[in-house]
Amino acid sequence: MTSPERPLVVQKYGGTSLADPERVRIVAERIAAAAVDHDLVVVVSAPAGTTDRLLESARAVSPEPSLEELDALLVTGEMANAALLSIALRARGVEACSYNALQLGILTDEAPGRARIRDIDCGLLAADLAAGRVPVVCGFQGATAAGRWTTLGRGGSDTTAVALAAVLGAAECQIYTDVDGVYSADPRVVPLPSRRETLSYEEMIEMAGSGAKVLHIRSVEIAGRHRLPLKVLSSFRSGEGTRVGDVGEGVEGLVLAGLALSSQEAEISVLGLPARRPVTSRLLAPLAAHGICLDMIVQNVARDGRIDLSFTVSRADYARAQALVRDRAGAEGAESVSGCPSVAKISLVGLGLRSHPEVSARLFAILAEEGVAVRMAATAEIRLSVTVDETEAERALRALHERLGLGAAPTGGCTHGQSVA
Amino acid sequence: MTSPERPLVVQKYGGTSLADPERVRIVAERIAAAAVDHDLVVVVSAPAGTTDRLLESARAVSPEPSLEELDALLVTGEMANAALLSIALRARGVEACSYNALQLGILTDEAPGRARIRDIDCGLLAADLAAGRVPVVCGFQGATAAGRWTTLGRGGSDTTAVALAAVLGAAECQIYTDVDGVYSADPRVVPLPSRRETLSYEEMIEMAGSGAKVLHIRSVEIAGRHRLPLKVLSSFRSGEGTRVGDVGEGVEGLVLAGLALSSQEAEISVLGLPARRPVTSRLLAPLAAHGICLDMIVQNVARDGRIDLSFTVSRADYARAQALVRDRAGAEGAESVSGCPSVAKISLVGLGLRSHPEVSARLFAILAEEGVAVRMAATAEIRLSVTVDETEAERALRALHERLGLGAAPTGGCTHGQSVA
Repeated sequence: MTSPERPLVVQKYGGTSLADPERVRIVAERIAAAAVDHDLVVVVSAPAGTTDRLLESARAVSPEPSLEELDALLVTGEMANAALLSIALRARGVEACSYNALQLGILTDEAPGRARIRDIDCGLLAADLAAGRVPVVCGFQGATAAGRWTTLGRGGSDTTAVALAAVLGAAECQIYTDVDGVYSADPRVVPLPSRRETLSYEEMIEMAGSGAKVLHIRSVEIAGRHRLPLKVLSSFRSGEGTRVGDVGEGVEGLVLAGLALSSQEAEISVLGLPARRPVTSRLLAPLAAHGICLDMIVQNVARDGRIDLSFTVSRADYARAQALVRDRAGAEGAESVSGCPSVAKISLVGLGLRSHPEVSARLFAILAEEGVAVRMAATAEIRLSVTVDETEAERALRALHERLGLGAAPTGGCTHGQSVA
Repeated sequence: MTSPERPLVVQKYGGTSLADPERVRIVAERIAAAAVDHDLVVVVSAPAGTTDRLLESARAVSPEPSLEELDALLVTGEMANAALLSIALRARGVEACSYNALQLGILTDEAPGRARIRDIDCGLLAADLAAGRVPVVCGFQGATAAGRWTTLGRGGSDTTAVALAAVLGAAECQIYTDVDGVYSADPRVVPLPSRRETLSYEEMIEMAGSGAKVLHIRSVEIAGRHRLPLKVLSSFRSGEGTRVGDVGEGVEGLVLAGLALSSQEAEISVLGLPARRPVTSRLLAPLAAHGICLDMIVQNVARDGRIDLSFTVSRADYARAQALVRDRAGAEGAESVSGCPSVAKISLVGLGLRSHPEVSARLFAILAEEGVAVRMAATAEIRLSVTVDETEAERALRALHERLGLGAAPTGGCTHGQSVA
């Protein structure tokens, strides 16, 4: 649907970008300027803090709120912002029109709080674009075939934007947020992080999956599947941002994308488990049945017919997971179960990890020289993750960032802002 | 759809009844108790203050917000409350399900901000009721045939509730608010007002049209057309409330319903207008064309070929109305145009005015004895309205209330609360 004269761009504005009327006005100015020579579809989040406030009110009337009705409550935040932004755009002469998921036909499955988009009806959007209008779409929300509300999970507005861009065949999807791109590490932890100009979809997926909060991981997966260029940009200042898309290896001469820190981790170990297959799956099945996600899973080779198995879970699931594992481990004849509720995971991500095995060795060497004990380690294609004691995590991150050469040159302008990798 | 064993009742809860989670819990308890032996449909308003807050945010991004998008903004208040109340009901074991106007199919015309309901699809509600569920419906809102939001105007949730009760054939529509009924006069102005046990539809319409804010006037019109019994009740304490419905004249031995005060009035007079028909309609047509509503219109008989014409408008329209009238009056050869921006209208309402002409005379006598000058007077079938200087209005109201015998006996328990007639 995009044309060379007026490329079609989907712009998504996050909650901090639309936190109050003053910021809504600023975003409206930006959209009005872009609409001069682009066809635009805009996707909005709820004002920053609104979703938490709504969750709090739900918990004030019910200890365990109905998930279906919770979704019906949460969608109102995006709806208010879509209408407000449309009002601001119309005041500037831009013919804007707000749409929620029911009006637009964003069809999802029926999983409340974590629904997945199945189909989007493009009829209304196509008509608006053909007429020179700017549709303003509520992110994060969907509707079932029966017309009930669903939500896509925290950060789901990114996924709405990318899915719309994919079905509309947009030239680009721009994610406007409070930081001006994806950084080599969290600026709140390391001095002088460097903004990545370009990341591959794989790198961005690994970064998002390892604790970087800048993009919803499913949005990157969808973008990658459709080879849709994604950009992470600041809504507060201009700049090139970070482009996520197809990259030739080594094009930038950069082997590493960045370091991600995830501090809400807990670790559980089962020691001396009789190696009768499939003992691992029997041990872990109850966790899956209770909806507990496992992250790093490390199992050594059997010694004397026994194996040791360790994995991480989110800290919120720790007590429940340990109880489930303890039950099962006893039945399987394990020697002991131990755990630590306060570990942090540091992940090094980069396409270069494929072709530069020495980087992994270097990471372990740096941590050893800094006196940081590595508890668990696991590797994926372009990622190497280690867990360390949470009290040592930030020091370890800073050392790795500096000694792996990930930072910006000290003279380069560093950004402030909350975020990211 | 109502049955003798489980009568169908529509309950509407206003914004003060659902102002915060604590009050939502109280309302949920009340609904759960009523659901034991009634089929229920619940209609909710936005939390008190929310609509004003949303309007304020719209005005912060646009001096003149788009009315269509303003409706899309305002509907979110009711949606949040419907979901929150459903969560609270489910927590108490009541199978509740929230519906907005799009989901339910509350079809209106396309007039933003003042839409009228054309049709309501009862399919989902009938299925819920048959299955023992309690639908919780967003009041105040509707949707056009094209699926765009509309709103019914301030107080429109009453109209949603009554319209639903009418199409569902409910036994009764209960309006829960912050006062326990309709009173003989505003309790903030008169001491010891008395609660009316029963009012006719006509009396309630005249009261609502004369400044009593307790019910949306259109809701009473619809109830009257369908002979649907309406009750005004407090959501904060139990009690009989006020029943609005069919009444035999004199059944209560009560000839007067009450006194209503409307203080936001302004008066315009055109003096010495040549009596060439249809001069009155030529004079007033420009006002209608500009959407200015006239209330009392008083025209004397012609004397020396000239007439005097006076009418009231809302104070907000005063300056605009006077300018329009001045233009036109000059062209028609009127002698002068005068006005007063600060009058108040006192209306005495009651079926008894039909059969007791002496009551009107008594009203003028009381005002004369109190030294209150009557500026304009006009009568309708069961209403007598006078305008007085706004500085004398409350004193006049208290005198009339006492001397017409409208108050409660001094020993009778008087209520507190904000409201009403």
